[in-house]
Amino acid sequence: MFESLVKFFYDLQDQITGALEQESGSSKFHEDTWTGEGWLAGGGRTRVMESGTVLERGGVNVSDVHGLLPDDLARNMPGKAREFRAAGISLVLHPLNPHAPTVHANFRIISRGKQEDPETIWFGGGADLTPMILYEEDATHFHSIWKKVCDRYPSMPYTKLKEDCDRYFYLPHRKEGRGIGGIFYDYVDTAPEVMGQFTREAGSSFLDAYLPLLKKRSSQSYTEEDREFQMWRRGRYVEFNLVYDRGTQFGLKTGGRIESILMSLPPIVRYKYDYRPAPGSRYEATMQALSNPRTWV
Amino acid sequence: MFESLVKFFYDLQDQITGALEQESGSSKFHEDTWTGEGWLAGGGRTRVMESGTVLERGGVNVSDVHGLLPDDLARNMPGKAREFRAAGISLVLHPLNPHAPTVHANFRIISRGKQEDPETIWFGGGADLTPMILYEEDATHFHSIWKKVCDRYPSMPYTKLKEDCDRYFYLPHRKEGRGIGGIFYDYVDTAPEVMGQFTREAGSSFLDAYLPLLKKRSSQSYTEEDREFQMWRRGRYVEFNLVYDRGTQFGLKTGGRIESILMSLPPIVRYKYDYRPAPGSRYEATMQALSNPRTWV
Repeated sequence: MFESLVKFFYDLQDQITGALEQESGSSKFHEDTWTGEGWLAGGGRTRVMESGTVLERGGVNVSDVHGLLPDDLARNMPGKAREFRAAGISLVLHPLNPHAPTVHANFRIISRGKQEDPETIWFGGGADLTPMILYEEDATHFHSIWKKVCDRYPSMPYTKLKEDCDRYFYLPHRKEGRGIGGIFYDYVDTAPEVMGQFTREAGSSFLDAYLPLLKKRSSQSYTEEDREFQMWRRGRYVEFNLVYDRGTQFGLKTGGRIESILMSLPPIVRYKYDYRPAPGSRYEATMQALSNPRTWV
Repeated sequence: MFESLVKFFYDLQDQITGALEQESGSSKFHEDTWTGEGWLAGGGRTRVMESGTVLERGGVNVSDVHGLLPDDLARNMPGKAREFRAAGISLVLHPLNPHAPTVHANFRIISRGKQEDPETIWFGGGADLTPMILYEEDATHFHSIWKKVCDRYPSMPYTKLKEDCDRYFYLPHRKEGRGIGGIFYDYVDTAPEVMGQFTREAGSSFLDAYLPLLKKRSSQSYTEEDREFQMWRRGRYVEFNLVYDRGTQFGLKTGGRIESILMSLPPIVRYKYDYRPAPGSRYEATMQALSNPRTWV
């Protein structure tokens, strides 16, 4: 099961980076393969595009690491065995055009103990959208794709996964969501065969959920004000990722590959004191949608 | 004791912002006074300058808050009483010119229990320098001022305060210091009268330590490459402040005033994948100094 999922993740990376390059004119992904350090063996394949005509910064990474868990980590994870393996695909795309939304997706398989034993395996993942300037029809499209996937799995109800996503990508000190959500799942008590299948279907749906939005919005014209607002919005993305994101914290503290983990940060960010969008503006409407999670489908 | 320190902090804020405005042509600080929310009563006075000719972003804040500690905070702080009061001055200055160093300083008095009882009072503070492009003579000047202050207080040995500073402003996942340090102290077991006096002397030395560097470097010409390097270096500042800084974490989690706390973040930041300064360059020399704390005086 593990091996076939790992192959799936690598194939999915090819498919996604291939499709993104097709949209990006002459801009290409740069590839780094790396191997783990310290207690973490295995490695990964990081693909990064920077200063592209469509993606200002984007990373699509696969990793497959294993080792014997150190004490402090062993205590803070479900399960008892020392043997640990985690593989997954993780991506964050920051488009250049402020009308095009930032997106994050992550799908992973983890085992603690013998990999042949289905009791030791669990899955996690999800995808969420962070519009800089909100288009309601984009949010609806994105959610409708994930709902379609969930609707085929009675144990993965869309409404629950949507709420879990809103709850996870939340900045308590701002009382704001990072974006308009999507789906999020972790430690689900469902047969690994079913979860493996769900993870494949969800991963394979990523391009359907995101590519049409990227295509449509990247050709739209924008003002300098739109760009300023985008750079300010990205500051919130950094706040969430560095202060709250459990994946980032786990990665930094376990000696993960820093540059692959921090690929999630946006290319250019602006911090402004006590900025508030003008009342009645589209920017204000975006911030209101982030403070009050909505039903999109 | 508390009241007279609070007055000192407000006066120091006037002195520092006045001196900085003198360097800044027509750029002025914007002032906001605010009052605490939830369990925190009291308030503060935030002064911010943005898009200045000398300071691209700078904040000099005084706060004086009090209240009855909630359970979770009560457990994680020294002392037993519920009554809590904290007052201090906190500043971060991000110059526009990449040759001019970023600086942070903070001086505070805290009591837990009756404020007349010296047993319930403690002090904390310090100042540290974050050069974007290192000038060794600037680092030496900065440290020499703090050493002079410490040398007048046998209970506050410069060498210890310098090492504590290097230890605090450290990014373990990068194995780098945030900057070239300065001094740092907290929970010192010394008579409050002495600590109050030390805190006044240290606070009053801030301009001596920093202003000459800001003046000298702000008139230096710089290249676009210097500016790019500065924006990249600032990314590390954000990483430290959001992932590790206990003051920031404490502030965000206790319901402090977000915009005053996050004034510490730089105005424009660039994240670049796996960037490394060219071997033999001044930029590389800067990064080497951050990886290996030095003796500056």
